[in-house]
Amino acid sequence: MTTITFLPGFRKISVEKGETILTAAQRADIHMNAVCGGQGKCGKCTVFVRSGRVDFDRDKYGHFFTREELENGACLACETVILDDVQVFIPERSFIQAQQILVQVRGLEVEFKPSVWKYYVELTPPTLVDPSTDLYRLLEGVTKAGGPSGEKVYAPLEVLRQIPSILRESGWKVTASIALVPGGYRVIDMEKGDTSKNLFGVAVDLGTTTVVAYIRNLNDGTIAGVASNYNRQISCGEDILSRVNYARKGGLGRLQELAAESINSAITAAANNAGIDREDIYEIVVAGNTIMTHILMGIDPAYMIEEPYVPVVRRALSTVSQRIGLNVNPGAGVFIFPAVSDFIGGDIVADILACGMAERPEISLLIDVGTNFEVVLGNNDWMFACAGAAGPALEGGEVLFGMRANPGAIERVTLDYESLVPVYETINHIPPAGICGSGLIDLLAELLRACVIDRTGRINTAIVHERIRQGEHFPEFVVEFAERTGIGKDIVVTENDIKNLIMSKASILAACITLMNQAGISNQDITTIYFAGAFGTYINKDNAVTIGLIPELPLHYIENIGNGAAEGANIALLNRKKRKVLDDVAYKIGYIELNAEPSFMDEYTRSSFLPHTDLAIFPMVEKALEACRIRKGVNHGA
Amino acid sequence: MTTITFLPGFRKISVEKGETILTAAQRADIHMNAVCGGQGKCGKCTVFVRSGRVDFDRDKYGHFFTREELENGACLACETVILDDVQVFIPERSFIQAQQILVQVRGLEVEFKPSVWKYYVELTPPTLVDPSTDLYRLLEGVTKAGGPSGEKVYAPLEVLRQIPSILRESGWKVTASIALVPGGYRVIDMEKGDTSKNLFGVAVDLGTTTVVAYIRNLNDGTIAGVASNYNRQISCGEDILSRVNYARKGGLGRLQELAAESINSAITAAANNAGIDREDIYEIVVAGNTIMTHILMGIDPAYMIEEPYVPVVRRALSTVSQRIGLNVNPGAGVFIFPAVSDFIGGDIVADILACGMAERPEISLLIDVGTNFEVVLGNNDWMFACAGAAGPALEGGEVLFGMRANPGAIERVTLDYESLVPVYETINHIPPAGICGSGLIDLLAELLRACVIDRTGRINTAIVHERIRQGEHFPEFVVEFAERTGIGKDIVVTENDIKNLIMSKASILAACITLMNQAGISNQDITTIYFAGAFGTYINKDNAVTIGLIPELPLHYIENIGNGAAEGANIALLNRKKRKVLDDVAYKIGYIELNAEPSFMDEYTRSSFLPHTDLAIFPMVEKALEACRIRKGVNHGA
Repeated sequence: MTTITFLPGFRKISVEKGETILTAAQRADIHMNAVCGGQGKCGKCTVFVRSGRVDFDRDKYGHFFTREELENGACLACETVILDDVQVFIPERSFIQAQQILVQVRGLEVEFKPSVWKYYVELTPPTLVDPSTDLYRLLEGVTKAGGPSGEKVYAPLEVLRQIPSILRESGWKVTASIALVPGGYRVIDMEKGDTSKNLFGVAVDLGTTTVVAYIRNLNDGTIAGVASNYNRQISCGEDILSRVNYARKGGLGRLQELAAESINSAITAAANNAGIDREDIYEIVVAGNTIMTHILMGIDPAYMIEEPYVPVVRRALSTVSQRIGLNVNPGAGVFIFPAVSDFIGGDIVADILACGMAERPEISLLIDVGTNFEVVLGNNDWMFACAGAAGPALEGGEVLFGMRANPGAIERVTLDYESLVPVYETINHIPPAGICGSGLIDLLAELLRACVIDRTGRINTAIVHERIRQGEHFPEFVVEFAERTGIGKDIVVTENDIKNLIMSKASILAACITLMNQAGISNQDITTIYFAGAFGTYINKDNAVTIGLIPELPLHYIENIGNGAAEGANIALLNRKKRKVLDDVAYKIGYIELNAEPSFMDEYTRSSFLPHTDLAIFPMVEKALEACRIRKGVNHGA
Repeated sequence: MTTITFLPGFRKISVEKGETILTAAQRADIHMNAVCGGQGKCGKCTVFVRSGRVDFDRDKYGHFFTREELENGACLACETVILDDVQVFIPERSFIQAQQILVQVRGLEVEFKPSVWKYYVELTPPTLVDPSTDLYRLLEGVTKAGGPSGEKVYAPLEVLRQIPSILRESGWKVTASIALVPGGYRVIDMEKGDTSKNLFGVAVDLGTTTVVAYIRNLNDGTIAGVASNYNRQISCGEDILSRVNYARKGGLGRLQELAAESINSAITAAANNAGIDREDIYEIVVAGNTIMTHILMGIDPAYMIEEPYVPVVRRALSTVSQRIGLNVNPGAGVFIFPAVSDFIGGDIVADILACGMAERPEISLLIDVGTNFEVVLGNNDWMFACAGAAGPALEGGEVLFGMRANPGAIERVTLDYESLVPVYETINHIPPAGICGSGLIDLLAELLRACVIDRTGRINTAIVHERIRQGEHFPEFVVEFAERTGIGKDIVVTENDIKNLIMSKASILAACITLMNQAGISNQDITTIYFAGAFGTYINKDNAVTIGLIPELPLHYIENIGNGAAEGANIALLNRKKRKVLDDVAYKIGYIELNAEPSFMDEYTRSSFLPHTDLAIFPMVEKALEACRIRKGVNHGA
């Protein structure tokens, strides 16, 4: 056997000759970037080989590195095969970074109707005149303690095997955990003595990027702990397509493990913070997109990314925690939200549950923006949904100084329209390193109001100002000068960045309008726009409407519901009746395939203006821009 | 590590120093007698140590052996600890012998209503305009093929994981196996192509001594194969008490494995004979006594053999084959018959199902005689049951030349009342080696009719006849002289044997009368006596009534139902409706504890005559004996 040592941590593991550095790192639980899923395409898994022999094709992959880096042993971990004992240095940039994750929940007003209960019973021991069986005696006690009637309760083998010794060793004083299951009830655990206080459940938002776990006390529904971490599958590919490709190359088992590990580690953190034993967690509810939930259940997601794009299953799924490697009470049930299609997953069904739009006759529009976007329109009677790729711009990709919402990101910006000096906030209040999505939306709206850009997104280079200049390739606006940044460079936004941002926002707006056309309704028919997703929470509603990211409604009709997937999971955990109707909700939704909808491209073109080519559907924005234009004496063009 | 070699087979395995020879033999799959369960009490596990060092206490256990045997290295395998590499010879007598096992079934007239089906479906592959999920498509096909409606069908994780590849690799032509489960249906298997013909189920009679498995074609209910073998737990103790004691000493896991192995080996034999793949077995129904079924499920039976004698569970149990180590299709369901009490198990509930007594208003009496006896009295409205130990006499124990129904056993006897020469049949038609239960009952009745014995069982030594003589301790009747036997000795029945047989039959008759008294009925109220158990099949009804083993009814009111447990299991396998009411039947039965019933001892005393002290309740027997007495000119006494 050969060994590999990872610096700077000096972690060491045995490897087979021929294994790649990336898979060895994954086995060693070192979480490296691999945006392309280990295909040698993204260049994000750079390592430096310090000693030992490896096989790496410099001719093919050398272009990712400078000459100096190559001289220092730079390789792509995914394309480097270990031939011998090696020492490998992993630079900071190749590690997956922890990100800012949304953990708040709106004030829930959910009726508390749990699906799992504990009953503490003190039983009379059997005698010759009362020789009923151990199980009968237990279930009779449960019924007397307010539980379901005995004949409705199924006792699985593992519980039957425990019953005789636990009853006798406890002096016939035990706590039984009983869960509602299809067709009746089920004994899921038996403990000695009174443990009825220790009854918890977990609501999980299993995202492509992050995992959030909320532990709730299932005696009263209160929150006991919350924790989150990134989805460890990121080491197998950053976006969902890379994950599916990884699964196709035999990696489904590994991805399943990583999904379970990600959830386990969030649960462990939340449980530790709250001083809760994981064994006292008796139920898990998971909301995630269709590919994530397929992977968590170990079901092949491959057929969802190629025509005709079919999931294996849409309906809500139930299983037992240990079947999918979740480390809570081994009898704990796992409930997985149903999906609408491969692109509208359980996370969106959870959004719908969180905003309550499926329960009201009024029409709502739900927009969830994350790596992709999903839009749902409808009420308690009908619903349409669609989904698409917004492009990476709103998450800081394909934008020169764009970045994720990590420390140093500019997240809010206002502009002094006279001096054009931006006033901004960065995450963690450190000198800026770049601009994240919410900051970019603010900037776009403010530059439009300040007449620095026109409605096509062109920068008005006629304005003479130190912040407005011709960059190397494109005109640009300087958000901050090098000396005040954390990166020693001017942070700018270029006309090309703005073009990319407009393309992203145009997709979302066009999707909304396409659904409205499908339903034959206009803005006036919509009572509420729900903005969901971590991104939604930080967004400035006025600015989002101003740039035409979403249709125009009075601002108080727009509600940020934040992490709707997590909230929906919490609701389903707390209220079994809400959970029961989810399959019906999911089946009711008509999925509109945007690529098959000829009008979508027209709407997209019309939406590729700020806010839209037709200002008649943005009357308030029109009025506000008019006011700015008059103040500045500028014609914003069309 | 040390090794042990077993002769004569030269089987060799590794052992830890300190292990006993018996446990090593068990691990080596050598099935040795251990009637006492390895407690050093029965002396049946004799081995001869040929070489190597062992630790065996000759002072304590030497009395089991002759001096010569001790000089040849005789030890008790259960009490001999291995210290070194050893060679051990196992004599023929220490192996468990295969026995004659009942495999016939009466002509069943059971409505065929199975609980598992196969549906072959040819599906249309998904397209962009028909992108429904794999599961939906499959279940829609099943519904169209006559199966249950899709939303009632649960697809477990293991099936969901298989669906996408099986559908595509088969060209969308698959066979789905669907089983009825509480609350709906369940997909238990998916196969490529049309396998709908390969659908089998197994009915198992799990006896303390023997295991019988019937494979049935679940497309039409016909029998496909039958096989039986001894219960391999015999190597851990012959009677049920020894098994429970073995379980108490940490042996439950081993006993569970042996129960599963016993069933597996019967199934394998039946499947091989019939040319059936075990993977095509989709359901197993097991009837067994309460201790056997607890052990098969891995549930501790310890509390059933001490006051207050409570089972862990009585109700019917369901699980999945692989959970208890049964090697059939991994998704196959296992149904275990419910029990009435620790002494009235699922085997008796199966008897009740087989004879149909719980479905008719007429009153029946069911008697099952095996290692123990069980009696059930009642109709579709009420039922009483009791159980007891008949003593070993009826199985050939505590009878000088008694033996089990093995080859060479005299199983039928008639007597020429003039010459007193017995005419007999032996099993396999070889020279006699002893007398089994049915032969002993015949002999008792015939000796009574021939006035050789009186109604107390005393041999009339006043008769001068070469076959009637004073033995070493007791008067005896010679059934066969040494030169015509297979054992070189006179085969006799002694007055002491007869006393033991009367004690056995008296228990059974007293139990029947006690139940009748409890119900306030007399012989005339009973329409049928069902005689069940392997023993019952071979018994001569007239002789059984004549000696007072069972109450007197006209002979055509007495029916041998043979192996009722196996038959009941077959019925439950074939008809789900019959299965459904079993819990109700079991709960309806009032269990009478004979030891707590003061009148039982009186009835026992009154039954300790041939046929009974009160001939008024045996009027036909009285008449027949009167006729014999007149013919012989003898007064039968009493």
